[in-house]
Amino acid sequence: MSLDVSPPHFEDRVRALLAKGDTDALHRLVRKVSTAEIEEAFEFLDTEECQLILDILDTETAAEVLGGVDEHIQEDLTDALSERKLADLVEEMDSDEAADTVRLLEDDEQERVLDLLEDETEEEVRTLLQHEEDTAGDLMMVELAAIHEQALVAEAIEMLRENADDIKRLYNVYVVDSERRLKGELPLRDMVLARPGMPLQAVMSATEAWATPGMDQEEVANLFRKYDLVSLPVIDGDDKLVGRITVDDVLDVMEEEASEDLSRLAGLGSEDSFHALGIFRLSRERLPWLILGLGGGLVSGRILQGFETSLSTVLELAFFVPVIMALAGNIGIQSSTIIVRGLATGEVKGDAPWPRIRREILVSIFNGAVIGMLTFGVVWFWLQSLPLALLISSTMMLVVLWATLTGTVIPMVFTRFGIDPAYATGPFVTTTNDIVALTIYLAIAWRFRHILV
Amino acid sequence: MSLDVSPPHFEDRVRALLAKGDTDALHRLVRKVSTAEIEEAFEFLDTEECQLILDILDTETAAEVLGGVDEHIQEDLTDALSERKLADLVEEMDSDEAADTVRLLEDDEQERVLDLLEDETEEEVRTLLQHEEDTAGDLMMVELAAIHEQALVAEAIEMLRENADDIKRLYNVYVVDSERRLKGELPLRDMVLARPGMPLQAVMSATEAWATPGMDQEEVANLFRKYDLVSLPVIDGDDKLVGRITVDDVLDVMEEEASEDLSRLAGLGSEDSFHALGIFRLSRERLPWLILGLGGGLVSGRILQGFETSLSTVLELAFFVPVIMALAGNIGIQSSTIIVRGLATGEVKGDAPWPRIRREILVSIFNGAVIGMLTFGVVWFWLQSLPLALLISSTMMLVVLWATLTGTVIPMVFTRFGIDPAYATGPFVTTTNDIVALTIYLAIAWRFRHILV
Repeated sequence: MSLDVSPPHFEDRVRALLAKGDTDALHRLVRKVSTAEIEEAFEFLDTEECQLILDILDTETAAEVLGGVDEHIQEDLTDALSERKLADLVEEMDSDEAADTVRLLEDDEQERVLDLLEDETEEEVRTLLQHEEDTAGDLMMVELAAIHEQALVAEAIEMLRENADDIKRLYNVYVVDSERRLKGELPLRDMVLARPGMPLQAVMSATEAWATPGMDQEEVANLFRKYDLVSLPVIDGDDKLVGRITVDDVLDVMEEEASEDLSRLAGLGSEDSFHALGIFRLSRERLPWLILGLGGGLVSGRILQGFETSLSTVLELAFFVPVIMALAGNIGIQSSTIIVRGLATGEVKGDAPWPRIRREILVSIFNGAVIGMLTFGVVWFWLQSLPLALLISSTMMLVVLWATLTGTVIPMVFTRFGIDPAYATGPFVTTTNDIVALTIYLAIAWRFRHILV
Repeated sequence: MSLDVSPPHFEDRVRALLAKGDTDALHRLVRKVSTAEIEEAFEFLDTEECQLILDILDTETAAEVLGGVDEHIQEDLTDALSERKLADLVEEMDSDEAADTVRLLEDDEQERVLDLLEDETEEEVRTLLQHEEDTAGDLMMVELAAIHEQALVAEAIEMLRENADDIKRLYNVYVVDSERRLKGELPLRDMVLARPGMPLQAVMSATEAWATPGMDQEEVANLFRKYDLVSLPVIDGDDKLVGRITVDDVLDVMEEEASEDLSRLAGLGSEDSFHALGIFRLSRERLPWLILGLGGGLVSGRILQGFETSLSTVLELAFFVPVIMALAGNIGIQSSTIIVRGLATGEVKGDAPWPRIRREILVSIFNGAVIGMLTFGVVWFWLQSLPLALLISSTMMLVVLWATLTGTVIPMVFTRFGIDPAYATGPFVTTTNDIVALTIYLAIAWRFRHILV
């Protein structure tokens, strides 16, 4: 990554002008930059400053900005804006963003804003609001070009000229029958290249991939990657076209899912933690995982206390507590991350995970052997005790194997029970492994205490 | 995620037909499925099976499949295929995939395959090969539609009809002057909607974002997300259009970068670890991080030995080694992940990281206080020793603060020195924090040993 050494960031210039009270210059500045710049700056400005900028912008641009910023900023802004203003902005948005924005409101405010919308918009948004969050129905917009299969290319182009003015990000025409059932699609490129007198059904391509409204957004993203799509049709149970998802939303989904995975692996709580939330909100997200770690650590301590006699007789045993815990943690995270990531990208199949699990175990046996031999050498050289070296190194091998097993199996079990397997990575696996590894270690030491002394 | 319970996977059907030796049925099956299905199946088939399928497919489809599969499969296949066959396939690929494929070959084989290509293709590929991996130049293809700014819309459409037949994924026309300098762009949608008699320069939009060939692929992906792009022009130092990047490649880049971050956080080595590599290759990727953990753990053990006297006098001190290490590790990972992720998505600015770092420290002071109080309560209740409870809980607060500091500062330092900050997450931060936390703990215990006994 390169460091940004460009002229002052837009948000700094906004702040400077606000401080000077120079609203004219602010007007000029805000109108000169693209909506993408404004959206980015909103990350760094406070709600009042953002609201001021929304007021300066024309309604269409303001709607685009409000629809495009991150959810946590949207939330603050929808709280701050009047219902009238909010309804005006929602009216101008693409249907998917309109629904996402209204969804953020409290139930009664939602109703009031919906009532302020034009009838057609209101109906669209109400329909979209029925879909669950993070599904294809939540991502889709209803604005699309659907043309009858018997129309000629020239007619289709004429229809687009007349009706497509408010369809942004139009890359394909969907070809449908009289019942609006999806028959195929025609990329604009092919439409431009096709002979104008051909009927659409003769020049269209078969639709390789489609979604249903209930499909999980992660699966939607995988379809885009697998089929190299820019837009995906959404059909209902009768094959009727109900909407489409565009790739710009998928880029955001991938970013969100990646953040979510990282966030769970690192024990950060929600993926929102990456944004500029307040201190207390951030603490609240992270504390549960820290307390889990704290609890696990204290349980480990209690286990150590249980083996107090062994420890006070052979104090050397305590020296290896850190290394056994470090390895159990690292190995568990390695294996669980492999499985969780594979499940997310579809490379590990939920119904056929065994090849991947078997591979993890083989890798672990090999790594366990290497780790075991290294440990044996170091401990023998360090403490000059063959029994201790044997004990520590064989425990290490067992711990490696055990940590791999929990790391691979826990995410699979979570998946079976419909829990996001990403929760199984990070603090959860580490804590479990710490406790079990320590118990294995001390139990073996206890069993062979007569040769250690 | 839903479990896939569909009919047998394509790769299983391929294997069954191979076992029966029924090549006719195999031909029929392979021709019936889409290239995306075949690409996916290649993940699960061995090189020989993949090669057999490539032979059955027509050259164009085979080229698309070979260009579309993951790099590690491409690598095996380019090794297995004859140079003649390889050249035939490369000839059919888009220029970006052609260059990526040739790049995988050994230097001398590269030369021989390049010589087998047609002159025009050879030149294109040689030019693309000069760009560094993981840059815009590596991602871009040279196939694009560039039309002079004075051409009329109708003329532009005519030009596309005549010349765009082999330009896949065409979403925009780039508008250039006589020197091929980029002046603007026209989405096909706007082209279809525009009046045919207008000159391009009157209907084009300003280009909001562009790349130079040396730009890092992560930055390219951030541009796509920020500006909601489907295609990004690449220009050289004289503003001349040299290629374009399409969003399908960006989806792959995002997947790759997300895997890479996860991979480094989990100490898995390269992002390839998520794929079906051999056992020894996987071991080799992971062992360095395990050995780092092993080394760190043994150093911690050596530190414990250094405080042997304190430990043998107050054995209870040993009980808290696990909890202190667990917290130091968890906190370090939380903070470093926040910073590394923020740097990757551009939300933490390399030249202005202080707001984010300050926030981490505030969160950490708050979390430290909570953790400290909890610990105080538990330890007092458990061991009935006020001095021990005071010692452990105050150490805990120091450890939380210290772990946050290393977690936030190390990635920033790595960035300053041009090292990928993702290396600072995971095993590296955990190991450092383990050692330092243990030292802080035992040093404090030693200092106050007179009140503990």
